[in-house]
Amino acid sequence: MTKVTAQLSVSLDGFYAGPRHDGDGDWMASAESHGFFRVTRWVTEAMSWRERQGFAGGRQDVNSEIVAESFDAAGAYVMGRRMADGGEVPWGDEPPFRAPVFVVTHRPRERLVRQGGTSFTYVTDGVESAVAQARAAAGGKDVAVAGGGSLVRQVLRAGLLDELELHVVPVVLGTGMRLFDADLGLDEFEGIELTPTRVVPDPQVTHLRYTVHDRTPLTLDDRGAGTEKA
Amino acid sequence: MTKVTAQLSVSLDGFYAGPRHDGDGDWMASAESHGFFRVTRWVTEAMSWRERQGFAGGRQDVNSEIVAESFDAAGAYVMGRRMADGGEVPWGDEPPFRAPVFVVTHRPRERLVRQGGTSFTYVTDGVESAVAQARAAAGGKDVAVAGGGSLVRQVLRAGLLDELELHVVPVVLGTGMRLFDADLGLDEFEGIELTPTRVVPDPQVTHLRYTVHDRTPLTLDDRGAGTEKA
Repeated sequence: MTKVTAQLSVSLDGFYAGPRHDGDGDWMASAESHGFFRVTRWVTEAMSWRERQGFAGGRQDVNSEIVAESFDAAGAYVMGRRMADGGEVPWGDEPPFRAPVFVVTHRPRERLVRQGGTSFTYVTDGVESAVAQARAAAGGKDVAVAGGGSLVRQVLRAGLLDELELHVVPVVLGTGMRLFDADLGLDEFEGIELTPTRVVPDPQVTHLRYTVHDRTPLTLDDRGAGTEKA
Repeated sequence: MTKVTAQLSVSLDGFYAGPRHDGDGDWMASAESHGFFRVTRWVTEAMSWRERQGFAGGRQDVNSEIVAESFDAAGAYVMGRRMADGGEVPWGDEPPFRAPVFVVTHRPRERLVRQGGTSFTYVTDGVESAVAQARAAAGGKDVAVAGGGSLVRQVLRAGLLDELELHVVPVVLGTGMRLFDADLGLDEFEGIELTPTRVVPDPQVTHLRYTVHDRTPLTLDDRGAGTEKA
């Protein structure tokens, strides 16, 4: 059965990139890219990712298996507009997705068909619609929310996310673009509960997978009051 | 050899308590306490913690072993003023530390000696001094930075932290007091690198332990440029 999943590489302090780069300067020289490349280094060094990009080399290890598993599980993608725009040139004629990608955007644009099975469909009527279209296109496989963080939060906020996997990279960045920012629409007395379903340790990155549940009121704990030992 | 360590329970989105409660209202009724009790629930349910508090019951499981291990490893504690003030009444005549506690504060106060080996020494000349005094008092065991988050950040920022353990609780709070906030004094092009040394999975909480290294410049990754397959 199709699940809606999100995987994101984050620093130990929760950033998936350095501070947001705006304007016309060179993105590659920006602090945003420096943070982004640090937290995704384990991906770029994975053989399975490099093969998808047509690059030689890389490591054949558990991280490479996890990248391959993510590609295999996804029957369709949902993506934010900024990520899609930023990737359009570097991904080239044969992007690594090999599946339909639904881009959430306010700007209408004609569908873009690339080689190798990847297409980009620009969805202007909201994240729920993009997820629904991706579900219909996924052929029974999963819908992967590719990012960025703002889109992952929108999907989480809308209660549409079934599974979240954080790839926690052992670095503290101190500043940057946070996956979890203050726009989840949670009341101060509730939380979104999750269940850990898989932990894969590795020196480069710790993979933490969760099933996402509903919002739940936070309950007080009585700290043992009334249960003193005799 | 004495290490300076910090252990903190945090939500998946990095909060160790709900939004900070200021003023005279009932802390137990605040959003801060609701978040705090959610992320520390695994501690209050651990038999080893309950025994230290004189409470009956609790679970004898891997989480209880980790609480016991933390108590055993600490020869002295460093603590923030707000945590020390907040704990003074609930911890009672025999606080759970059973070791010297050095409280970083601006307000001079006479040393407080409690039963069971716990004392509180109020240090007014800064975090470095408090850590040095705790080292001298630790008798070869570790110095544990007990919290709160602001103090952990000060110790990390000063380059004094050797080991960090996050107890990651499977809940998203959305808002609250963040362990990692924007006062680490890191340049946008550098990070604090860490090495994961232990991962202990459990349905209630994932224990992630790291050795802390120095600040390191973030390097760009060329994303495979120049290494295309023939």
